[in-house]
Amino acid sequence: MNLGINLSFAIKRWVEPEVWAELVSRQLGLRLVQFTYDLLDPWWPAASRDAMAARVRRAAADGGLEIESAFSGLANYCFDGLLHPEAEGRSASLEWWKRAFDVAAAVGAKVSGRPLGGMSAADAADPHRRAQRYRDLLESVQELTVAAKQAGLQRLQVECTPLAREIPYTAEQSRKFLADLEAQCAVPVTLLVDIGHALYQPLYGPDARMPHWLHGLGRSIGAFHLQNTDFQSDSHWGWPDKRGLFDLANFAREVKEAGLEDVPAFLEIIYPFELADEAVLSNITSSVLHCRREYAQEAVAEQQPA
Amino acid sequence: MNLGINLSFAIKRWVEPEVWAELVSRQLGLRLVQFTYDLLDPWWPAASRDAMAARVRRAAADGGLEIESAFSGLANYCFDGLLHPEAEGRSASLEWWKRAFDVAAAVGAKVSGRPLGGMSAADAADPHRRAQRYRDLLESVQELTVAAKQAGLQRLQVECTPLAREIPYTAEQSRKFLADLEAQCAVPVTLLVDIGHALYQPLYGPDARMPHWLHGLGRSIGAFHLQNTDFQSDSHWGWPDKRGLFDLANFAREVKEAGLEDVPAFLEIIYPFELADEAVLSNITSSVLHCRREYAQEAVAEQQPA
Repeated sequence: MNLGINLSFAIKRWVEPEVWAELVSRQLGLRLVQFTYDLLDPWWPAASRDAMAARVRRAAADGGLEIESAFSGLANYCFDGLLHPEAEGRSASLEWWKRAFDVAAAVGAKVSGRPLGGMSAADAADPHRRAQRYRDLLESVQELTVAAKQAGLQRLQVECTPLAREIPYTAEQSRKFLADLEAQCAVPVTLLVDIGHALYQPLYGPDARMPHWLHGLGRSIGAFHLQNTDFQSDSHWGWPDKRGLFDLANFAREVKEAGLEDVPAFLEIIYPFELADEAVLSNITSSVLHCRREYAQEAVAEQQPA
Repeated sequence: MNLGINLSFAIKRWVEPEVWAELVSRQLGLRLVQFTYDLLDPWWPAASRDAMAARVRRAAADGGLEIESAFSGLANYCFDGLLHPEAEGRSASLEWWKRAFDVAAAVGAKVSGRPLGGMSAADAADPHRRAQRYRDLLESVQELTVAAKQAGLQRLQVECTPLAREIPYTAEQSRKFLADLEAQCAVPVTLLVDIGHALYQPLYGPDARMPHWLHGLGRSIGAFHLQNTDFQSDSHWGWPDKRGLFDLANFAREVKEAGLEDVPAFLEIIYPFELADEAVLSNITSSVLHCRREYAQEAVAEQQPA
């Protein structure tokens, strides 16, 4: 099993690259990292951004960490992205993606990704506009694969989200989306499946199960996001959490049965901004220990690694 | 009482200016609006951004709405802002503010604001660096008041947040901050007090009460954010919500006693992205009715306005 961590836990707290690199390698005992654009906004002026990205790359190398990918977090999930109802909004999102590719390459990642965006309620309710947004989206992603290749990236990664106004939101729609893109992309497009998205019961019903996604998408899955959830929200809780119900050991078995144990699985926990730093450090440490035991099946002791 | 609404409820759903303007004026029966930068990111390329802002201004005018202010939402709260530990991060934030002033002026607002930023855990733990961040912050805000004036704005508004790593986070620190700025600003700096921040018990203790903030800050308060909360998180829930404990009618009495009934109070509800649109529409409607009855003391009926 290929366990790593998304740096979401570090935002606004352990912001300096040397600080989070030390936390990940020594406190958490991991080496596989997904960088989050919540630590370095692709919009920031290029000179500032590039200096900061170079520092990220150095700190990761010094800490023996591999930054496999760079991914959007909370900040850019607030906007409609490539499905914005206005042409100006969609073109701003294209620009964001291209700037993000530069950041990804600069921090040493091979892959960049995010959810593609959300339709407005009005567009989603109109079959004609909905179809137009989908056609535009295919064109935008094809254009972006060219930019990703130019930036030196190997793949573009698209996150599935639990909203019917977003694309793609089901395994079936994801397959159609990839088929519609096929043979027109400069680099491969893969999917990121977040278990808290995939099992969101208010949208997918009480019988939603991971094997449906795993067998439906197979090798199209480029990465997983791990989180604890009650299946009633996109929770992004850690372990322990008395509200959480997700059985990680069972998920590890399902991933093995699907032959996907090499796919990187990044723990992505999102803490309230106002939560005390000590509480976050304690919970991210116990969450990683839980993932190492239950998902990676390491024989790690209860106490924190040295 | 001066009740309005922050457009946070509309993000990723009712994105088109004509759509939210219709919702606010007809469904919710309000006319005072605080625009959120979560609908129009100041980072977007100027040509796109200006065209979108012009559409916002037109839609608000057509709907009879007043956009009193423009304020940052969730997206920019993810970053450290003017307190970023790296000089490049702080300079990017200065640039964000200046771009935001242009958006605020273009949508017709008089005021622009946000929380100032957060220190990293490492900076906050180091008395020397902490003091340096504070001095730099005063300089940055002074510089920004000049830019705000040039953009044609009347005030710059700073939100108090419930984190000891952020500035300002208490009524006492807010007073000192304003005093330290005094006579060096090109436009006045006022404070936005969010009741869910001000009464966050894990930081301020179980005895935190609004009169402490109201009488401590008085006319330095430029606006309120209203939300329902359990005092254990920065909840941003609406009404009804079985978890929420905030007594809005009592707050209205406290605001009157402090002589601040003319200060705009913007309802700011943040819904999970994945929540169904119908549920959000129903809750924002009942929340506004609750605010109109309990805060503005209007005699409105239970049913939705026509």
